[in-house]
Amino acid sequence: MIAGHEYVHGYSGREAERLVDQANAVTELLHRDTRYPDGTRVLEAGCGVGAQTVTLAVNSPGARIVSIDVSAESVAAAHERARAAGVTNVVFQRADIYALPFAPASFDHVFACFVLEHVPRPVEALTALRRVLEPGGTLTVFEGDHGSTYFHPESAAARKAIECLVELQARAGGDSLIGRSLYPLVVSAGFQAVEVSPRMVYVDASRPHLVEGFTKRTFTAMVEGVGERALAEGLIDAAAWQRGIRDLYRTAEPDGTFCYTFFKAVARNP
Amino acid sequence: MIAGHEYVHGYSGREAERLVDQANAVTELLHRDTRYPDGTRVLEAGCGVGAQTVTLAVNSPGARIVSIDVSAESVAAAHERARAAGVTNVVFQRADIYALPFAPASFDHVFACFVLEHVPRPVEALTALRRVLEPGGTLTVFEGDHGSTYFHPESAAARKAIECLVELQARAGGDSLIGRSLYPLVVSAGFQAVEVSPRMVYVDASRPHLVEGFTKRTFTAMVEGVGERALAEGLIDAAAWQRGIRDLYRTAEPDGTFCYTFFKAVARNP
Repeated sequence: MIAGHEYVHGYSGREAERLVDQANAVTELLHRDTRYPDGTRVLEAGCGVGAQTVTLAVNSPGARIVSIDVSAESVAAAHERARAAGVTNVVFQRADIYALPFAPASFDHVFACFVLEHVPRPVEALTALRRVLEPGGTLTVFEGDHGSTYFHPESAAARKAIECLVELQARAGGDSLIGRSLYPLVVSAGFQAVEVSPRMVYVDASRPHLVEGFTKRTFTAMVEGVGERALAEGLIDAAAWQRGIRDLYRTAEPDGTFCYTFFKAVARNP
Repeated sequence: MIAGHEYVHGYSGREAERLVDQANAVTELLHRDTRYPDGTRVLEAGCGVGAQTVTLAVNSPGARIVSIDVSAESVAAAHERARAAGVTNVVFQRADIYALPFAPASFDHVFACFVLEHVPRPVEALTALRRVLEPGGTLTVFEGDHGSTYFHPESAAARKAIECLVELQARAGGDSLIGRSLYPLVVSAGFQAVEVSPRMVYVDASRPHLVEGFTKRTFTAMVEGVGERALAEGLIDAAAWQRGIRDLYRTAEPDGTFCYTFFKAVARNP
């Protein structure tokens, strides 16, 4: 979570559970090619409640990881999660991505997952991250893109519900369509050798763990989670909202399909 | 092309050129895991002008391929293209997918690329194809999904232009959003072990061959190709159309990105 900006998904217990379901369903997609050598210094920027931190730490057991978040409450939750998992190579710290309390070139690698989508000035945030990287150090960024969502059966009501989430995230200063623009953002922040690889989640009835873990408990749960605010802000009426959520669940039936794409960017500090 | 239904993209020379550009840009995506053993009998259903036929034949040089299309003119063009490429393991024949002139179990494998999207009754077509397959024979289907398109910079005008193409294809009896629903369609036609794998085309400035070969000369050219009909049918006015096309080309600039997904389905006849 980022300084001074509301986290669009809130901080409820159910949201924390959703983040863990999401991490489980997409862990392989995200982490399969993210490994840091022993002894390297890694900054995890915007660790939130630590949904990715444990996997990051377990996959790079010899790396020395510093995980930061602007929310003291999230940092405490992440710390507790890492402790419970027996992770010992992560130090947690409250810090603002725009005002990092680290000297230049303090890290060999920076990792940021689902952070830029909530940042009002992503190029500025990326530039700040670049300053604490060694020359030749790497940046790894992972983001979703809610506009990459499509499904069968098609439903205007479901699209409208998703648009409410996109709009609320925009009102909170974020950009939930950011995945598709990682390449120009990372280039603009002065990185080189920028490589973006999309990671598409495709769900049909032959993949029941994704029907449950992604379509229902990650994506649709995320949309459902902003229902009260969407209604309170007058973006939609209750009946239309219920139709939208119903139609999202409809895509999890045996003849339904669901598509969503995450984007990973890797780049080098010159 | 399918019996009695207009081919939405028409039959101009420029369209034939576009189909070849498209085949070049997506050949690897489509054909990389499509190989048929020596001596097997393969039906290519809806070969059109043969944009995929040569690659299919070259990758499976010992297979005996029969390529059909409902348009005699397309069959002649495909035949000529295969002859020019020195392909000798393909027989061409004019035939209607709904009334196949083959005995049951005539083929070990069926291959159909960019065909179902133009078919008014895809389950009926798939069922007809299944009947000419041996028990245990395989079906391979490849389709796009125009609703899988998104890009940066975002543009309502560009979306509107794409929607014109979707609407024209629907009026011609097709479904250009069919990629996402291959799984239920193939299951409904009685196939087993249905496996769908999405093949996403992601384009940014680090991939100049895709900027040219896909964003501009395949996708945007395809949309441009229906401009006259979109205007003639009153789906859009000329100024809005021009804005849409301009904004599609805009995504091919150095800070632009473009995403599109093809879907491959492989299944077994029980």
